[in-house]
Amino acid sequence: MTLPFFYTYTFFIMAKQKDSPANNNERKNFLPHIAFDSVIFGFSGEKLKILVMEYHNTRLFALPGGFVGVTENLNDAVRRGLKERTGLSNIYLQQCYVFGDVKRHRPAVMHTILQANGHQPGDDHWMLDRFISVVYYALINYTKVTPRPDALSDSCEWYDVDALPKLMLDHGTIVKKALDTLRKNLDEQIVGMNLLPKQFTMKELQQVYEAIRGEKLQRTNFQRKMLASGLLIRHKKIFSGKAHKAPYLYQFVQ
Amino acid sequence: MTLPFFYTYTFFIMAKQKDSPANNNERKNFLPHIAFDSVIFGFSGEKLKILVMEYHNTRLFALPGGFVGVTENLNDAVRRGLKERTGLSNIYLQQCYVFGDVKRHRPAVMHTILQANGHQPGDDHWMLDRFISVVYYALINYTKVTPRPDALSDSCEWYDVDALPKLMLDHGTIVKKALDTLRKNLDEQIVGMNLLPKQFTMKELQQVYEAIRGEKLQRTNFQRKMLASGLLIRHKKIFSGKAHKAPYLYQFVQ
Repeated sequence: MTLPFFYTYTFFIMAKQKDSPANNNERKNFLPHIAFDSVIFGFSGEKLKILVMEYHNTRLFALPGGFVGVTENLNDAVRRGLKERTGLSNIYLQQCYVFGDVKRHRPAVMHTILQANGHQPGDDHWMLDRFISVVYYALINYTKVTPRPDALSDSCEWYDVDALPKLMLDHGTIVKKALDTLRKNLDEQIVGMNLLPKQFTMKELQQVYEAIRGEKLQRTNFQRKMLASGLLIRHKKIFSGKAHKAPYLYQFVQ
Repeated sequence: MTLPFFYTYTFFIMAKQKDSPANNNERKNFLPHIAFDSVIFGFSGEKLKILVMEYHNTRLFALPGGFVGVTENLNDAVRRGLKERTGLSNIYLQQCYVFGDVKRHRPAVMHTILQANGHQPGDDHWMLDRFISVVYYALINYTKVTPRPDALSDSCEWYDVDALPKLMLDHGTIVKKALDTLRKNLDEQIVGMNLLPKQFTMKELQQVYEAIRGEKLQRTNFQRKMLASGLLIRHKKIFSGKAHKAPYLYQFVQ
């Protein structure tokens, strides 16, 4: 059966309102005290960027986050939340760290956001409770996706990691932790991320590492570590008849 | 003022009962739906072991875990929980992974444990709720500590990783994840862990890696990777006048 447009649209709006985490009646739909935040790193051959949202009429900048449904797997909730808030899907997210200090609880900030979006939260509103946040991160090629802000937010933009706006709550600390984790795990991250062509030179690989690690690397050390890492296959040189100056080409072991 | 022994002891017992997570009245003292579990790896030069608790009269084996107080930092709660359940303190715990699937919720198991310890939990007992578990791990020299079981448990014992008893709930999966993480992060774990003398040979280092990774490693590959890792300082050989067969000695960069 196909419902007339009016009914499906009205139902859609009602369902949206019913499920909105900003409604205090929906306390029972989400696990209390547990939130998640996503640090989405974007790279396209030059600079490392991060996806940041700005809440309506607040000048508050934040990482995209959300809450876990009472019958929802945590990892599914994070994928759903990222999709709802930024429009991005099919992103391979990895857990990074859980932020669980008491001092991160600052209900006034969430109060401001709810008010700026037309809510009048009482002191017992569940979003004003203390939250532990499970942080996820991903590394994507940002030229291949177009983020879209959700209803709570003015914008959803890529910012250079070294030129971020001031982020609300402890989101600045969260970004730093995610960046440290990305840099530490770069060897395994880099293989599946489509940041390089299928075959690449050692110099191109070094440029990616330098951009993401934010520092110049010493060429012979870098080459020695990479060759010892077991990540790379080296292709035979193709002799074109010209001078033998062509560099070796590599690809990742799958 | 010093209270007579009787009063202080009675107060201590009452306080213990009042604070016991097994009491449903204490729902309000802990964050709902959030638990933690600790995978404590022990090593003393030969085999890798894990600390496992057995609950009274249940034949249920489990990792030491616990809950987070409403005004307690998550990391502090994990240290406190490990101390209370095993007697171990001053252990450097690291976050490993958050287990948040719905299917890990099996209230009948927790019901059995509570009953075996003299409680009669109603269906609304907070410990029968769904829990997301934040998993921590540590690597210690197990000859230097003596674990002690808490009141809920019969025993608190070291088991070889390849001869564990069947663990309750998803604790077997949790151990596997922690072991993968330990093996992946072994380079950084190994430096601070007092598993080797201050100066050691490449062969001794290789033996530690082999025991923890559970596989034989190829000597020249291992040596090349270690020398490229930047973790080691090589000492000058001391020529004793005997044949120059003494191996190089290394120590970790601090």
